[in-house]
Amino acid sequence: MEDLSGIGKRAKAASFVLAALENDEKREALMGAAKALMANASFIIAENEKDMAAAREKGVSPAMLDRLVLNKKKINEMAEGMRQVASLPDPNNELLETFTRPNGMVIEKRRVPVGVIGIIYESRPNVTADAFALTFRSGNACILRGGSDAINSNSAITEVIRESLSKGEKDLSDAVILIKDTSHESVSELVKMNRYLDLIIPRGGAGLIRNVVNNSTVPVIETGTGNCHVYVDKDADLEKAVPIIVNGKTQRMGVCNAVESLVVHKDIAEKALPLIYAALHEKEVEIRGDDFSAAALQGREGVKSATEEDYGTEYLGPVISVKTVSSLEEAIDHINRFSTHHSECIVTENRESAETFLKRVDAACVYHNVSTRFTDGFEFGFGAEIGISTQKIHARGPMGLKELMSYKYEIRGEGQIRP
Amino acid sequence: MEDLSGIGKRAKAASFVLAALENDEKREALMGAAKALMANASFIIAENEKDMAAAREKGVSPAMLDRLVLNKKKINEMAEGMRQVASLPDPNNELLETFTRPNGMVIEKRRVPVGVIGIIYESRPNVTADAFALTFRSGNACILRGGSDAINSNSAITEVIRESLSKGEKDLSDAVILIKDTSHESVSELVKMNRYLDLIIPRGGAGLIRNVVNNSTVPVIETGTGNCHVYVDKDADLEKAVPIIVNGKTQRMGVCNAVESLVVHKDIAEKALPLIYAALHEKEVEIRGDDFSAAALQGREGVKSATEEDYGTEYLGPVISVKTVSSLEEAIDHINRFSTHHSECIVTENRESAETFLKRVDAACVYHNVSTRFTDGFEFGFGAEIGISTQKIHARGPMGLKELMSYKYEIRGEGQIRP
Repeated sequence: MEDLSGIGKRAKAASFVLAALENDEKREALMGAAKALMANASFIIAENEKDMAAAREKGVSPAMLDRLVLNKKKINEMAEGMRQVASLPDPNNELLETFTRPNGMVIEKRRVPVGVIGIIYESRPNVTADAFALTFRSGNACILRGGSDAINSNSAITEVIRESLSKGEKDLSDAVILIKDTSHESVSELVKMNRYLDLIIPRGGAGLIRNVVNNSTVPVIETGTGNCHVYVDKDADLEKAVPIIVNGKTQRMGVCNAVESLVVHKDIAEKALPLIYAALHEKEVEIRGDDFSAAALQGREGVKSATEEDYGTEYLGPVISVKTVSSLEEAIDHINRFSTHHSECIVTENRESAETFLKRVDAACVYHNVSTRFTDGFEFGFGAEIGISTQKIHARGPMGLKELMSYKYEIRGEGQIRP
Repeated sequence: MEDLSGIGKRAKAASFVLAALENDEKREALMGAAKALMANASFIIAENEKDMAAAREKGVSPAMLDRLVLNKKKINEMAEGMRQVASLPDPNNELLETFTRPNGMVIEKRRVPVGVIGIIYESRPNVTADAFALTFRSGNACILRGGSDAINSNSAITEVIRESLSKGEKDLSDAVILIKDTSHESVSELVKMNRYLDLIIPRGGAGLIRNVVNNSTVPVIETGTGNCHVYVDKDADLEKAVPIIVNGKTQRMGVCNAVESLVVHKDIAEKALPLIYAALHEKEVEIRGDDFSAAALQGREGVKSATEEDYGTEYLGPVISVKTVSSLEEAIDHINRFSTHHSECIVTENRESAETFLKRVDAACVYHNVSTRFTDGFEFGFGAEIGISTQKIHARGPMGLKELMSYKYEIRGEGQIRP
């Protein structure tokens, strides 16, 4: 069994060194790691080939092989991502607030790294490089626990990065440590290592996330489940509604900010639904509707009845549920009940209805006349993204560098004591 | 067994109503609750007398009885605290950031309440009123689980507040719900209620906090353990150092921002330690030192040898440990090793040493020439405090109203879709 405590201890020690690095040191180390990835592409591809061979033997799906495979182009993308992260402003030591108290002491609130971040993820080996880049740029050490499918690829990438990090003035190699034990036990142990870890971010399917949330004693940020709705209000402009729905549902089906459910006001349903149906049917999307919407679409191909379960399902594929409502209130209640609090949209020309929706719907991102597909760190202009938080603690919505930071108070005085 | 799911559901429903309240509505409801506490003081005192009688029967300590007792003065203080919280600015809907993206969509980041907050606490019944005031002012619903010692007092306070909240235009009584089941099972169930709770804050001793952290699947903010150090640098002004140490150790012994350990540079130890000893000995504080400091204090009464365990102990009483070091580096390493990351202080006239300490010591509050006793929401000017976070996620240090908030992104556009 791997010595996870030893790994934790090394990462903790590295985190103190990282927190004290200058901007230039971090930038140069990242540029060096990007260069090393390119220089060692053949080695990484050869190691990846071992994972690919094992996956082919297991008979995994082509989609899965596509996620697993590394080639020159993908390694180039990883390196380019690293260079982009290197070019982002350093969030460390940023002054957030300052105030002087009546006794003369000056309080400064400043951003500091969280410390050691554990990332538990599944088959995509590019996460190894991305997660390292973001945690390193924000001055954090990371402990990575990838899946068994990609173990050779992940090991190779980590080895190349660590080797590069060891070559500077300071040995920074423990900024990233990969756990090679891919058993369930290593996850179980990692999520209890409060002494060394400050935060755990699971990246993967619902099962992985649930397992981490249920077992971790280290603080966790939940990411990635999106049962996103578009509400077509009675005052909607259908020339906006239809493209927003089609974009949300079909531009990319398997992602968390894709639309899974429509809520349609009954006053507009008979006009709206046939148009929406036509546009979605062309993209081969199946519609599962309630009685009212089924009636509005009577006789059309590919329309089924929705169950309660449908309203709670994140399809991640060519299916969409439809619920009709008699009021904005009912729409908001329905969404708040079934939402995973990720991204929700209202299409309306009525400003008051839009404001009510934006204020009362409980989600990380609430949209008025904009596609939910914009919930993304790059689209928001953060320059990077480690995931999309669906919880309300610490970070909500797209997480960039700032969301990987904590803060501290620095208090300066001349001998003040409390009376 | 109490229906905790039912309680969770009611609190969740209330949280949506609270999140949509206007500033004036919240302020008036709090003022009303304060008034109701005063008007029902006799009832609350009579119920408190039942807890007091049970406690006396059990033979609890006078200190514990003092924490438990409610009288007119204490109820007055609770009501006054509520009025003060009512007068604080409403953090809800505060615009934190706004930016327009190249496609014209406007993103606003706004503060919103967390939702439903569970507070698990021990014997002080005034926490019932304080926790309600802070969560309510910040637009959150709260579920309270107090200890069995104060069950009658807590029930009476909650009943009076709920009654008052039910009388306005909207019935807001479910903004605060007390769990009456004081068995361990009710805590175990509460900390797994992710469907209804967004956050849990334990308030109490180390055992309570450990239990909640180890078992909760709901996000937790750890509060309250403080193994705080004062480092007397070789360049310290002892006229500042001695008062800061005496204030930190003796102004109030049982609190989390009290000083538990001294770190003294060897170059100044022989001069500093006799002065520190004299001041602390006068206050009947026992000193547990390493060999070097014991030698410097040779022959003096009340000086013992420190063990490794001493350096990790939060005494909360008239004992202090002393460690001598040969460098600032060694001081920082020692503190980072034994600190609970609460409050740490350097006393020095050397600005460079101070800055190194402030940057490199990993704690919520780092002080230069100021007593650690200032780590407090009121002393920081927050106007209120629900606790002091010792973790790095979400909130760090004193937690006022803003620290009980999350945020959301509101995105407004004219039909933007993702290309």
